Amino acid sequence: MPNKHFSINLNIRGITQSPTIAINDLSKSLEENGKTIYRMGLGQSPFPVPGPVVETLKNYAQEKEYLPSKGLPALRDAVAKFHGMKDNVDVRGNNVLIGPGSKELMFLLQLVFYGDIILPTPCWVSYAPQSKMIGRNIRYIQTLFENKWRITAEQLEQFLINENDKYKPRLLILNYPGNPDGGTYSSDELKQISKIAEEYELIILSDEIYGQLHHQGKHISIAQFYPQRTIISSGLSKWCGAGGWRLGTFAFPKSFDWLLEPMASAASETYTSVSTPIQYAAVRAFNGDLMIERYLWHVRRILSFIGNKSAGILSDAGIKVHLPVGAFYLFPDFSLFSESMANRGITNSNQLCERLLEDTGVALLPGSAFQRPNEEFTARLAYVNFDGAKALAYSETIPISEALPEDFGTTFCAGVFEGLNKMAEWVHS
Amino acid sequence: MPNKHFSINLNIRGITQSPTIAINDLSKSLEENGKTIYRMGLGQSPFPVPGPVVETLKNYAQEKEYLPSKGLPALRDAVAKFHGMKDNVDVRGNNVLIGPGSKELMFLLQLVFYGDIILPTPCWVSYAPQSKMIGRNIRYIQTLFENKWRITAEQLEQFLINENDKYKPRLLILNYPGNPDGGTYSSDELKQISKIAEEYELIILSDEIYGQLHHQGKHISIAQFYPQRTIISSGLSKWCGAGGWRLGTFAFPKSFDWLLEPMASAASETYTSVSTPIQYAAVRAFNGDLMIERYLWHVRRILSFIGNKSAGILSDAGIKVHLPVGAFYLFPDFSLFSESMANRGITNSNQLCERLLEDTGVALLPGSAFQRPNEEFTARLAYVNFDGAKALAYSETIPISEALPEDFGTTFCAGVFEGLNKMAEWVHS
Repeated sequence: MPNKHFSINLNIRGITQSPTIAINDLSKSLEENGKTIYRMGLGQSPFPVPGPVVETLKNYAQEKEYLPSKGLPALRDAVAKFHGMKDNVDVRGNNVLIGPGSKELMFLLQLVFYGDIILPTPCWVSYAPQSKMIGRNIRYIQTLFENKWRITAEQLEQFLINENDKYKPRLLILNYPGNPDGGTYSSDELKQISKIAEEYELIILSDEIYGQLHHQGKHISIAQFYPQRTIISSGLSKWCGAGGWRLGTFAFPKSFDWLLEPMASAASETYTSVSTPIQYAAVRAFNGDLMIERYLWHVRRILSFIGNKSAGILSDAGIKVHLPVGAFYLFPDFSLFSESMANRGITNSNQLCERLLEDTGVALLPGSAFQRPNEEFTARLAYVNFDGAKALAYSETIPISEALPEDFGTTFCAGVFEGLNKMAEWVHS
Repeated sequence: MPNKHFSINLNIRGITQSPTIAINDLSKSLEENGKTIYRMGLGQSPFPVPGPVVETLKNYAQEKEYLPSKGLPALRDAVAKFHGMKDNVDVRGNNVLIGPGSKELMFLLQLVFYGDIILPTPCWVSYAPQSKMIGRNIRYIQTLFENKWRITAEQLEQFLINENDKYKPRLLILNYPGNPDGGTYSSDELKQISKIAEEYELIILSDEIYGQLHHQGKHISIAQFYPQRTIISSGLSKWCGAGGWRLGTFAFPKSFDWLLEPMASAASETYTSVSTPIQYAAVRAFNGDLMIERYLWHVRRILSFIGNKSAGILSDAGIKVHLPVGAFYLFPDFSLFSESMANRGITNSNQLCERLLEDTGVALLPGSAFQRPNEEFTARLAYVNFDGAKALAYSETIPISEALPEDFGTTFCAGVFEGLNKMAEWVHS
């Protein structure tokens, strides 16, 4: 859109949400022509915000004072307690920073910290555009399907050795359970990465926004093994279903005021503070209780059910995919069909997603949006196109110790499986 | 706070809210020692958010979907209609951008637009730190007490002639009614500035966040005279009393998609979108109705009463100050007391504010925070240290066609006038 005659920061030019927007635009025009679209592109929690959290927002609707840029003290304490209880890491309230989404906090981090950004790919769509906006140097490390799309300690070490500058300031971004792949790291893998990080004094931004959506509730944070330089990123968007509310959190190591303080100053000169009523409601969410735990148990059971069935349908069709461990994504790899793709004139992941959408109505995001090579036939599938409120209400009628019945899928998530079956047919058509 | 051993962006180092924080810290320690503090430092509306707007927030508390980065379409339309009705400018909804505070939108504007920033001073505290964070070139133009702290068309023209680069990309920031001075521009002054802006193709960021707090409800936007390159900035923080809710608005000229689109892309990679329940409530605020108009009439009458009395007390004491036209600020100039200041060892505006606080308990912000020369004895006074809810409830019992009774001040705003009288005594002590 920027015109050549106007004066736009060169670091900003060319930044668009093009893959998402292209898929959305095509989805709309197909829908207008009467086609059924399976919306598996956007990664939004399908579940409602837990009732007590919504009630708290109502109760604080009249609060209108500016809050401190670092966040409401009671919320900072609640987030610290949350990470202590959930992740077994020792965080204090005054090491927590509250922002309007963890994405905004990551942007401020990249703005304030002066160093290289190390990104294992596939990675979430916004890390790289943020680096570009700030003019930071991004170093990608491509992971492999065979390694469940996770970076290995060996890969990281080799990369750092090749850099020839041991203590260059660097930020390694890890995201697990991962967007776009739904996988995570084992405790041993995290320990091995920690060792390398320690040796090179890396700062780790540990994006654990899906931590509470580990399907077995067994998320492990690398901050347990590398507390001295790990920043844990979280927020309300995924586990609490409140993406549109815009509240994210950073939990810093104890000795990181050198980074937290200038980030808070930058916050005070940009978004000022997070919306006051939202912060009060978030205190309720992060303090938690049995009602919120129950909500999480049911959400996890539903996601595990759908995710595993979904991966099964794809695997049975010969599409390479891992069973999901958390979040609500799969990252299928269509490489076994490359010959048939070539015959259809499909040469990259953008074309793959466009043709899939046109032919089957399934909307996915191409692997290229996650910094994978464009010619690789990968895509992200978000299995969220179902009514989360209805699914949750039904799940609550089944004891949590039992499995969901087989017909749960056809009753509550028919759209997900219809879409997947169409994909399975399509690859063989 | 950043340590010399850590790696921090040089454009961020040194950015703090130091003048505000220093005054706040001193206020707290004095209060703990039993001193009465008159909090006239922070510029926060003392009035509650209008009831129907709070009710709307409650009604939409369960809304949790991400909204478009540009804003909820109904809100963009409401803001366009608002500027049409209030400011007599023709804005369309698709030329409006919604952000988490107008401050954040200004930051994105400075990030996206590549050009110099022209700032008449005294100016609001955050424009300059934002430029510094982005690495933009700031050009200050000092205004004069005699010109009511407003830039003249002649000053602007002379500055531009001296630049020797007629069409260099430039953004002129105007703020009226003004923070920190409470003054505004006449229709003729705006026309004259428009002529110069037109000749040099300046882009104007017209910060009209206090537009609806013109004490006579007679705010005029420069967009009436220079619609082709004026961006109007507004939001809920001041006229709607909802600073902590964090919602700001930009209304762009029609042909400004070249700037709006990359700003929206930058938004989508940073804060994503503004909190969904807050946006629904803002639709109610910007659509307005007779209840909200009545609220504004009363708010204006109260601010006019207090502002004029306050300026009178200072003038009577020999402190130079203009009668306020809008907002809730005065920008007194103590220069007639420079000899007595020198005798007390006061040589700049920081020292002036510190001593005033220690001696009288009145907390002001020094002129230096508004980019005035540090040795100039100016300061910002926010006459907001009263209970806005009580004052409003009382005002509503008096017909709007009548003046508030003389005892309104002592009954509802005693703290304001006590503080001012202490200042008046202090300069002569």
